[in-house]
Amino acid sequence: MLRSLIFFVAISVSSLIAAQPSEKPGDPGTTRSVILIIGDGFDDQHVTMGRNFLAGHDGRLVIDTLPVRAAVQVQTVGKDTDWVYVADSANTATTLATGITTQMGRVGTSPTDEDLVTIAQRAHAAGFKTGIVSTSSVTDATPASFMSHVSSRGCENPAIILGGELYSVDYEGCPQDAMVNGGPGSIAEQIMNAPIDVVLGGGLKHFTTGDPASGNTPLMMAEGQKITVVTDPAMLTGADANERLIGLFAEGHLPVRLQGSDGRVAEQPDTSTLNKLDWRLGSVTQPDPISCEPNPAYGDTPPLARLTEVALNRLTHNNDKGLFLMVESASIDKESHVRNPCGSLGEIAQLEEVVSVALDYAEAHPQTLIIVTSDHAQAAQIIPEPSLYAEIPVPVYSPGHVARLNMPDGSLMTINYATNGFVSEEHTGANVPLFANGMGDGLLPAFLRQREVHDAMATFLGL
Amino acid sequence: MLRSLIFFVAISVSSLIAAQPSEKPGDPGTTRSVILIIGDGFDDQHVTMGRNFLAGHDGRLVIDTLPVRAAVQVQTVGKDTDWVYVADSANTATTLATGITTQMGRVGTSPTDEDLVTIAQRAHAAGFKTGIVSTSSVTDATPASFMSHVSSRGCENPAIILGGELYSVDYEGCPQDAMVNGGPGSIAEQIMNAPIDVVLGGGLKHFTTGDPASGNTPLMMAEGQKITVVTDPAMLTGADANERLIGLFAEGHLPVRLQGSDGRVAEQPDTSTLNKLDWRLGSVTQPDPISCEPNPAYGDTPPLARLTEVALNRLTHNNDKGLFLMVESASIDKESHVRNPCGSLGEIAQLEEVVSVALDYAEAHPQTLIIVTSDHAQAAQIIPEPSLYAEIPVPVYSPGHVARLNMPDGSLMTINYATNGFVSEEHTGANVPLFANGMGDGLLPAFLRQREVHDAMATFLGL
Repeated sequence: MLRSLIFFVAISVSSLIAAQPSEKPGDPGTTRSVILIIGDGFDDQHVTMGRNFLAGHDGRLVIDTLPVRAAVQVQTVGKDTDWVYVADSANTATTLATGITTQMGRVGTSPTDEDLVTIAQRAHAAGFKTGIVSTSSVTDATPASFMSHVSSRGCENPAIILGGELYSVDYEGCPQDAMVNGGPGSIAEQIMNAPIDVVLGGGLKHFTTGDPASGNTPLMMAEGQKITVVTDPAMLTGADANERLIGLFAEGHLPVRLQGSDGRVAEQPDTSTLNKLDWRLGSVTQPDPISCEPNPAYGDTPPLARLTEVALNRLTHNNDKGLFLMVESASIDKESHVRNPCGSLGEIAQLEEVVSVALDYAEAHPQTLIIVTSDHAQAAQIIPEPSLYAEIPVPVYSPGHVARLNMPDGSLMTINYATNGFVSEEHTGANVPLFANGMGDGLLPAFLRQREVHDAMATFLGL
Repeated sequence: MLRSLIFFVAISVSSLIAAQPSEKPGDPGTTRSVILIIGDGFDDQHVTMGRNFLAGHDGRLVIDTLPVRAAVQVQTVGKDTDWVYVADSANTATTLATGITTQMGRVGTSPTDEDLVTIAQRAHAAGFKTGIVSTSSVTDATPASFMSHVSSRGCENPAIILGGELYSVDYEGCPQDAMVNGGPGSIAEQIMNAPIDVVLGGGLKHFTTGDPASGNTPLMMAEGQKITVVTDPAMLTGADANERLIGLFAEGHLPVRLQGSDGRVAEQPDTSTLNKLDWRLGSVTQPDPISCEPNPAYGDTPPLARLTEVALNRLTHNNDKGLFLMVESASIDKESHVRNPCGSLGEIAQLEEVVSVALDYAEAHPQTLIIVTSDHAQAAQIIPEPSLYAEIPVPVYSPGHVARLNMPDGSLMTINYATNGFVSEEHTGANVPLFANGMGDGLLPAFLRQREVHDAMATFLGL
């Protein structure tokens, strides 16, 4: 097993860094920083779930104390029609990272497969320090879209980029992007070359997977470059401050903090035989309540707030220009896909802790714009406990999966997942919330499109 | 049939008007007005459905042009626990109207059944003109909560207040509120006595239903009072400007503007026999797309924007103090309950028109605070078309009801309703959006509780 592998070399500045139109803020000479915090799938249902659970029904989340709030329209280019109305994390992160609206599955590429320069790459070229931190594999769609350019999000390593089988289905990969075909390589290979000073999260397996022909892995690319790669959180503090830092703390995504008691997730209500024959008859038994408890698999996984602190400390060292840092709490979405509200709630708590870290940083570095937003809406819905129609003498219940959560005050909050009957729920199409600190006042209007979030960050940094 | 019944008498000032703590705005001598526009069930999924359909995926609604946007936490007092996490229109409208958090079903009453003074009643006592306009029966929960006080929203007329059968279930009514028992009467009776200058909407049947003992109807109470009652929209302009005006343009709720082609609403996907035996096998046929078209039943129903104009004109006449006007687009919610997205979309269009009327008014009367908000979230969700998992060789479909809407640009927007399998969907628990014009800047923070929306309006009016 890899533990604190260390390699050294000069950072190669991506050839992708190209001139784009820029608008300078009022005082371009001032040190300026942007911390973009993405809650994946963190729509208003999830925000409210989090508030109810973490702060109480009359409480406030840290994000609720931020002075600027807006709604962001999520836009996705269709393949057969101009638009589709529900997005994925690849096209939305690409839009946040580049200001360009694109198709689902695309990472840092346009609908016609052009490689798009990301705000992190442009920030680096302009002299800012840059960081990407996530609870997912750093090769997953959201972090990848700030650091790499492939036609399909599945192309995470040098093997799968050539195609094969993914999630038990034939996968075409992104052969035109493969290094063997003269492309920039898989997401993991591009991360090794990306002008990002700090990359922290999961995904080690994609860096140790070799090209099928040569056997060369992305990690091997570190040789001869000034890159410190760590896989042990304890090594984070000792890493050479003058090198790029890549920290990979799980083979895949980082484990989540919370789970349902006995590992339970949302379940289908149990109906009587009579009810199965006629929906107006018989009876229904709702699933027993679930309590949220620590996930044993979480172990000594570094908290996202800790990774954020490490990134901020490193990026601030010897820096008179400023920084661009993207931090993602990725598994709010992933746990909603698998109908595990406790999983999502623990990751909302992680996001909240990151916002606190960012606010502390902004207090010490006042020219810091903090934006918290989501990439797309998700399936979970808070539904009544009991049903609004509980007094009607007919069994009334969700046709999907429900989790009845024990709340700290003894009440029950019921979460419904019913976008499909498959093993993974669908995303949904609502506009998503955006929260910002005072630096966003006057910069971020009350309503904007996702591409305009990118534009506002670029304007703030003078890019 | 009643057509433009006219009665005359002095308006009785409700004995409910009592002193409450007040905070004066900066310049209490200025004429000030509040227009509160409630979209019932108008959560972020519905806002986005409306934007996509009415303005296009890259368009903006009128509400999107408002400079102030906030999120509002919806709070509901439980019966067995401190809180429940999903509300109805009665408790939420009561909170908006009174600043007090209460239980579901309650209209203008506290959890311990005290009658709560509403902002409309307080505004009247302070010399403001007042109006309530809705596309629902004016006795329905939202408008009723600004004008009346009963323990249960079903107590709309002098018969049902004594109990009986409602929606095919035994209903206890609100006997303690009945006039025969010394109470203030049913909602319709209280509206006849309420200090509201203009009341426009539906609900005629509740005003022509008599007390079972005496046969006296609410409409009879107009005799001897200065009240003009009209049931023909053409009579709206000729009504005496010095009297209260009550306009009732339907027996129940006003018909909605749009319907699905062939009257279709969301339907269950049709699955093969094999799929019914094993969810991984067989096939699924999604419902055919639906186009939205005019609802023939709408006929010459007065548009909500027209009713709003009439109310504003009357309330502005001979008024050097200002006004409080609540306008509700009620059937966004009602149509979502019955899984009719075209119905909801037409009523979102009505809300948009009302916002335009209000903005025109505010241009001529700058000290006008316009707030647009929702009372609670609703069941509808925009889901992917096709499924995110369309390439997986397993039939993936909603377990609930879906409507695939033909959009103006030729694309499809699919709406999912899957909170239950009953004839009426559940509300959901997400925080709701709030939009305001510039008068709300500095008055309305980015996050607030529903009671604080009331408080901000009261502060603005100096109540």
